[in-house]
Amino acid sequence: MLEPFVSSIDFSSGKLRDYDNKLDRKLSSMLGMFADKDIFDQMLAKEDSMVYEVFEKEVPEQSGQLAHAVTVIHPGKVGNEYFMTKGHFHVKENNAEIYLGIKGNGGIIMQNKEGQSSYYPIEPGTVAYVAPYWAHRTVNTGNVAFSFLAIYPADAGHDYGSIEQIGFPKLVVEQNSHPELVDNPKFTR
Amino acid sequence: MLEPFVSSIDFSSGKLRDYDNKLDRKLSSMLGMFADKDIFDQMLAKEDSMVYEVFEKEVPEQSGQLAHAVTVIHPGKVGNEYFMTKGHFHVKENNAEIYLGIKGNGGIIMQNKEGQSSYYPIEPGTVAYVAPYWAHRTVNTGNVAFSFLAIYPADAGHDYGSIEQIGFPKLVVEQNSHPELVDNPKFTR
Repeated sequence: MLEPFVSSIDFSSGKLRDYDNKLDRKLSSMLGMFADKDIFDQMLAKEDSMVYEVFEKEVPEQSGQLAHAVTVIHPGKVGNEYFMTKGHFHVKENNAEIYLGIKGNGGIIMQNKEGQSSYYPIEPGTVAYVAPYWAHRTVNTGNVAFSFLAIYPADAGHDYGSIEQIGFPKLVVEQNSHPELVDNPKFTR
Repeated sequence: MLEPFVSSIDFSSGKLRDYDNKLDRKLSSMLGMFADKDIFDQMLAKEDSMVYEVFEKEVPEQSGQLAHAVTVIHPGKVGNEYFMTKGHFHVKENNAEIYLGIKGNGGIIMQNKEGQSSYYPIEPGTVAYVAPYWAHRTVNTGNVAFSFLAIYPADAGHDYGSIEQIGFPKLVVEQNSHPELVDNPKFTR
């Protein structure tokens, strides 16, 4: 039987102090996911920059357990498109997820299988509810690291599927120094 | 199909800004739960004080959904026993729960069905994992309101059962101005 345990988020740094696993997502792990392929290739040729890091506590991937992790998306853009996470549906599609903004500024873009999309900005204290059946991706829209806590059923599973190739209905891009949603030309239902 | 939504925690006040439901737990709703019955009765005769308030967002009580609420335990004691929540097992006993300390200082006391107990202090940023099969109760060990975010499967259910009469293996009490765990004389397996 699993024993209770604690960890700790440093609200001032935005980091999880005592994680079990760390996942690094660099540019090279996000081939084809940003809209501007030429700029992406130029950036990658110069440096395989860190896009985001996931600091997670380990729990069994079993029904009833709750996975929890702090993600830190570094500030940056590929062209005018903000650094972002890969984004995914849950394999168990009816599984929700909760995000809590810890530090920095960003947003969450979501889509359902009917091609509807939804976007919410996230700042420290924002609690975003990813309803069942909605794919989700977070973006850093600021100039400093954007960090948030994510909690989801540990057996939800990650279905990257079509999102790796096609993405979300909307891109989150910088226009006139502000985040804007624009249509993703690659997106088709 | 449920749409995504957001709410917001005010880290400085420790409150949830846009809750759907609020649950009030006053002394009168906690009859028999504190060890010192005489002092409890004297306090209640004087004033039916608020012990804790739960501010919750409403989600369907369905598998895959995640209930989330901010609880504020007011500062106070019954004798030397700190103000606390009722405490419960989940009806779906294998369902975990996650607490995140937002403001103030408190702790979480847990027990499993074998009578083992576990206690962790919670301060802002502490992430406490209530492992499946562990009953849990939070206490305010400070002089100001103690608030925390709780997230759990929306269909977990609350089983107050024996805890309402017998409580946890340990009481969390103030001794020499500090929280201490002492044996609960009423507790039997």
